[in-house]
This record gives sequence, structure tokens and C-alpha cells, in this order.
Amino acid sequence: MPVNLLPPEPADLLPVAGVRLGVAQAGIRKVNRKDLTVLLLDEGTSVAGVFTRNRFCAAPVQVCREHLAAGDGIRAMVINTGNANAGTGAQGLVDARATCEAMALLLKLQPSQVLPFSTGVIMEPLPVDRIVAGLPKALADANDTHWAQAAEGIMTTDTLPKAFSTRVDIAGVPVTVTGISKGAGMIRPNMATMLGFVATDAHIAPELLQSLTAELAEASFNRITIDGDTSTNDSFLVMVTHKAATPLITSLSSPEGLAVKAAMLTVSRQLAQAIVRDGEGATKFITIQVDGGKTTEECRKVAYAIAHSPLVKTAFFASDPNLGRILAAVGYAGIEDLDPTGIDLFLDDVQVAIQGGRHPSYKEEDGQRVMKKSEILVRVLLGRGSCTDTVWTCDLSHDYVSINADYRS
Amino acid sequence: MPVNLLPPEPADLLPVAGVRLGVAQAGIRKVNRKDLTVLLLDEGTSVAGVFTRNRFCAAPVQVCREHLAAGDGIRAMVINTGNANAGTGAQGLVDARATCEAMALLLKLQPSQVLPFSTGVIMEPLPVDRIVAGLPKALADANDTHWAQAAEGIMTTDTLPKAFSTRVDIAGVPVTVTGISKGAGMIRPNMATMLGFVATDAHIAPELLQSLTAELAEASFNRITIDGDTSTNDSFLVMVTHKAATPLITSLSSPEGLAVKAAMLTVSRQLAQAIVRDGEGATKFITIQVDGGKTTEECRKVAYAIAHSPLVKTAFFASDPNLGRILAAVGYAGIEDLDPTGIDLFLDDVQVAIQGGRHPSYKEEDGQRVMKKSEILVRVLLGRGSCTDTVWTCDLSHDYVSINADYRS
Repeated sequence: MPVNLLPPEPADLLPVAGVRLGVAQAGIRKVNRKDLTVLLLDEGTSVAGVFTRNRFCAAPVQVCREHLAAGDGIRAMVINTGNANAGTGAQGLVDARATCEAMALLLKLQPSQVLPFSTGVIMEPLPVDRIVAGLPKALADANDTHWAQAAEGIMTTDTLPKAFSTRVDIAGVPVTVTGISKGAGMIRPNMATMLGFVATDAHIAPELLQSLTAELAEASFNRITIDGDTSTNDSFLVMVTHKAATPLITSLSSPEGLAVKAAMLTVSRQLAQAIVRDGEGATKFITIQVDGGKTTEECRKVAYAIAHSPLVKTAFFASDPNLGRILAAVGYAGIEDLDPTGIDLFLDDVQVAIQGGRHPSYKEEDGQRVMKKSEILVRVLLGRGSCTDTVWTCDLSHDYVSINADYRS
Repeated sequence: MPVNLLPPEPADLLPVAGVRLGVAQAGIRKVNRKDLTVLLLDEGTSVAGVFTRNRFCAAPVQVCREHLAAGDGIRAMVINTGNANAGTGAQGLVDARATCEAMALLLKLQPSQVLPFSTGVIMEPLPVDRIVAGLPKALADANDTHWAQAAEGIMTTDTLPKAFSTRVDIAGVPVTVTGISKGAGMIRPNMATMLGFVATDAHIAPELLQSLTAELAEASFNRITIDGDTSTNDSFLVMVTHKAATPLITSLSSPEGLAVKAAMLTVSRQLAQAIVRDGEGATKFITIQVDGGKTTEECRKVAYAIAHSPLVKTAFFASDPNLGRILAAVGYAGIEDLDPTGIDLFLDDVQVAIQGGRHPSYKEEDGQRVMKKSEILVRVLLGRGSCTDTVWTCDLSHDYVSINADYRS
């Protein structure tokens, strides 16, 4: 059961001029499953991406990086589920390239204008023939209204499709941002993959796109964690079609730049948070905000130490205000000169700890009242400076173990 | 059910001349429980310790560091369970000192000659009065044969006491090493504490002791992990009574030094591994050996990334050869210039991966045969150099979640 997440209403997902999506059943791993999604982009679209930092990155991630670097103008994306094409060695690269070549042939493009994405089983060869056979069907389905279908097409162990949309006025012209994501369920015998795709018709100077994409990822997908396992296939792509009839946005600090960035961040964060809400076995959505750090980085280290602690996560699952576990995680987060007597801890509005010890007025029933909620804010004040950072995570439940331990049948 | 661990036979635990141990019921948190242990050392004993790196370290850890630094000659240790005296602020320090003062008064020592240890509930005030009231009973019980009782006296959620002994001949004289440990169960509403105490009657030059202790810890307690949560109270103490009638050992590289060190390492490792074998919910004991690194440190990073991955740990629980998860963990361990195509992976004698991909002759039934065992060796070859390191861990089971999520009744 996802935490406060509903399936998208197709009518709420606004088309982005210049982007069409199509889905097909290619029988990649299972029959009767929409497992092949294509994303078609009008000529002139600017595309940027950020990818997993896992050194064991999958073949499609390597090909994506090459094709983005080639600079020939990305015009299409192919996303298959059922097979991650990871841990597949040299053959994996051959297979990822073959997918791009087949798509390019159908669309009269260069292979370098196609980006491949795969998610699913690893260490098994990619069934390129089935993907290639499915492409014409997916292309025939392509339509600018098919965002909800595409969100469903890229699902693996996700229990719900994830798609969000927003609109912002720039110089009196409506600009649309729509995106889809999947993850971080781990399909057996396998690992998770997070995929995120955000498109906008905003007219943004292409040279701003890579840093904008990195900035969006940092504040959304790079701030979530289910279990700390970084997948081999994680990819986040931003597409800008330039179709909105506004003046060119040449700075992200201008009022127009800020407005578009904010809209894109809204969608990116919703997509990222939806992954946590649909996290394996998740029963709670937890925001961990660390204030008062000397640097943003040290705030992030503390937030991740809390978010990754199995003891903290199981305590949330149990609605148990076992809050010393949070203080302990703060202590081992890696801030060498941390003074524990400077630390305060809040759970929503309840002050649990002051100056590193239990707050005199803290009552366990107050802590438990908050722990029973499905959305919880953990706030740590380091008392060292004015920096802050936030991470979103979920609890660790019996279902997490079941989902990841259950031997494939 | 601990993994291949039996309770110690009291007769197997060899007394160490100059060390006496006593246990009492002090009613610190529960009645009818041996919760207070004292360790008495003859004059002239050398003592060194290493402690948690958690910045939120508990009051007794702070006092231990002070008293060891004072150099007045440690003569006694007081260990209570039921309360960790952590997250207790300034009062915690007052309470830890009061414990030492009470013990010193009874033994006609300076308080700085007493080391305090606490493990149990955190963020609750230490019941010093009950500890002080219990000390005479524990002292009356003190005896050089009470190692097994002491191992039981320091248990919290441990299911079995942990104690080991060995003897080595130095210049024709038998030298004894005996030790006890506890952890890493987390008593609710609480966090784990690892405690380890190793004593020997060896005649080792005192100036060698601190580096010897650090070296022993590095190769034993610092190579185990249950869930990656570093406790606020972890402590490892080495006591050398100098009672064995051998020449003074002035170098740890001499034959005698090497022999004593090896005996102490044997006991330290057994104690550390026993903690993993008795890890919360553990059903498997897993050795993770990483070879072929450029540095020992990078081997350790890889070993810990594998050992801490919830995906790897749940796969072991399920006896599921879901081995891409191990490769993925290698990939995100933080070696920036890692070449995935240089990596081989073995499970016991079964080669799973070669050059970063599935080994052509690997069959899943072979992987599963190994995964079903209760003791498993994971061996990763990085192919970058000649360094190696090893970490011991356990799997992640439903019982782990139950133990840590079950709200205290």
C-alpha cells in the first residue's frame, strides 16, 4: 500500500507540445504486460540527463552518456522493463546499441539520436529481437496524451504509476511541465532502477539545460532513499521542446527562469517522493530535515545516516518513539568535530531532545502520537551554522524483507 | 537461534592470574537479573581501550577515556546492563563518575582507577543508587573462575553468553588469554552496545599496549557489522597482568610478541564473530573477503558496502543467489576509478562472475547450493592490486525487523 499516493488521473497530465509517448507489449519477460515504451521528441528539443554514480553502471546508461555527448540532437527514447541489461559485459553494449539502431532505422534518425533505458532482471542477456519486434507497435501507439500509459509502461514492482503535471505562466504564456517516474522496487532476481523523465515546452536556452538538470536531480531524486542501494541503471532525463511562444529564457535567475525552474522542481520532487511513497513495504513517508549545519553537505550526511539506519527505520515501522536511535545516527554520520551537547531533535512539533539530552518536558506519549502518523517530519538542529538539507525516506517493514527475500517462483 | 555458536563451557575458560570477576543482581531495570558485573585487576596491570567513534558517545565512554588518560593504573571496572547512560547530558557524566567514586571507596582506590561501562536503555537517567547498592554483592562474588558468569552478566538481548580462552607457550611458560563480549542486540527502547574485554597474564611492555589494542580491534571488532549502526557505547578493553613468568616482551614483531599477539587475536576474533553469530535475527554467518585492491582501505569499503546492503542481506536470508546485488554494491562502494570489467565474484568455490559479467559456466543451482549453507564465503576480486580485507556479517531476516520493531510491552 503506497503512502498517500493515488494513481494519476490521465486528464490531469497535460500534454507537452513536441513530446509523444507510445506503449506496447513486447513479451520481454512476461506475456500480456506493457513492457516497451517509446518517447518521441520533435526536432529541436534539448535533452540532458544525470545517471547513476554506480561504477557498475548498466550498458544502456553507458550508451545514453555517449549519445548525449555526441550532440546530434536526441529525438527518441526506448524504455524496456523486464531486463536491466546490467552485468551483461560487452554483449550488453552491443545489445543496447542494437536497440538504438533499430529505432533509428524506423524513424530515419542516426542511432546517436536515440537513448536506451532498461530496467528489470540483471545478469541476463537483453532479448533485443523482442524489443525490435515490439517497436513498430509502440510507435503506432505514440500520442501526446499518453503520459499515464507511459507511466504504467515503465513500471516494474511499482504498485502504482507515477506521473505529475503542472503549468506556469511565463510572460502571459502557459508553460507546461509533465513527468513520469518509476522505482524503487526491486524486481527479483534483481535490483531497483529509478527512472525519471520530465518534459517541458519551455523556451530555455539549451546551454542552461545540463546544470538545470543536475540542480533538479540534486533537489529531488538525489534526496530520496529507500534502502541506500544505488542501482546500476538510475537515470533522470529532462526534455525541453521550446514550443511555448515565450521569449528565450537565458538565465535561471531571471523571474521567468526562476518560475520555470520552480515548476520543473515541483514535478521532479513529486515524482521522486512518489517513489518513496511506493517504496517496498513502506507504511510511512518520512521527511528528514537537518538544520543548523556548517555546510549543506554535513546536513545531508546526517540526514542520510538517519534515513539509512535500519534501527531508525524499524522504529518508524513500529510507531515506536525510540528516538535515541536518531541521536546515535547523528553521532556516527561522520562530522568529526560534532558537539553532541549542541543538538536538538523535533518530531513534527514535539521537542524530543535539547542540548543532546532528553527534553525535560518530553513525554513518550507525545512522541508516539507523532510516530503513528503516516507522514512524519524529523528535524535535527545541529547548532553549528545556518545551512540545511532535507532527505525523504520510508520505514523498514516486514514487507520489505518479504519482497526482497521471497525466492522467485 | 545463533549461527553455529554454543554457550561457553565454564571449564574451558582459563583463569588469568590477576583478574577476578563478580556478578550481582542490582535491579537496574528488571528484577531477578544479573545486571551488575565487576572486574578486578591486580596492581601493576596494564590496561588500554578503544571506544566508539560515535560523536554522541555515552557518558561512561567519556569517563573511560579520561581515566585511562590519567595514568593512575586501572584496578577495577564496573559494567551495568539495563541502562546505557547515553543521551543523558551533563547528569550522565555526574552519574558515571559517582559509580567510579563508589567503587573506589569500597576498594580504597582513586576514582580514576575505575572504568565504568553501561549498556541498555538510552535517554533515561542511570539509577546510580541501585548500582552503588549492588557493588558490595558483586565484589563479594569476585573470583578468578567467574568468566562465564561475567559473560552472562553483561548480556542484554544476546541470546547466549560469549567467552573464549586460549593458551600459548612463551619461552616454555604457558600464557593465557581469556575474554568476554556482548552485543549487538538492541534492547528496546534502545540501541546496541558492543562490549569486549580481553585479559592476558602475558608480560608485555606496557608502552606496546595501546597500539596492540588498536591493532586487535581493527582485525576483530572493527571488522564485524550487523546493521551498520554504530552504538554510542562500544568499548573494547585489553588487560595485561604481567603475571606469566616469561621475559618481558618488548616487541610485537619478535617470535614471542607475534605468538602472544596471535593468541590475543584468536580470542578477540572469536568474541567479535560470536556477536555476528548471535546477531539479531541472524540465520547465516557471512565472511566477505575482498582481494586484489590497490589499498586495504578500498577493499574494506567494498566489503562494508556488500555487508550493509539490505538487498544483499535479504537475499542471503532467502538463500537466493541474487548475485547482481553484490556486484551493484561493489559498484557503489565509492572507488571512483573502478573498472567493472576487472571484477570476479566467487561464492565459496563457485565462480559467479568473471570480468564483471556472469561466468559462462555459472549455474544458478550451484549458487543456490552455497546460499543454503549457514556459513558462506563471498569473495570479490577487484583485479587492481594485491591488497585484501575481510568483514564478517549476517543476513537480514524477518526476525531482525520483529526484534527492532516490536513495541516494548
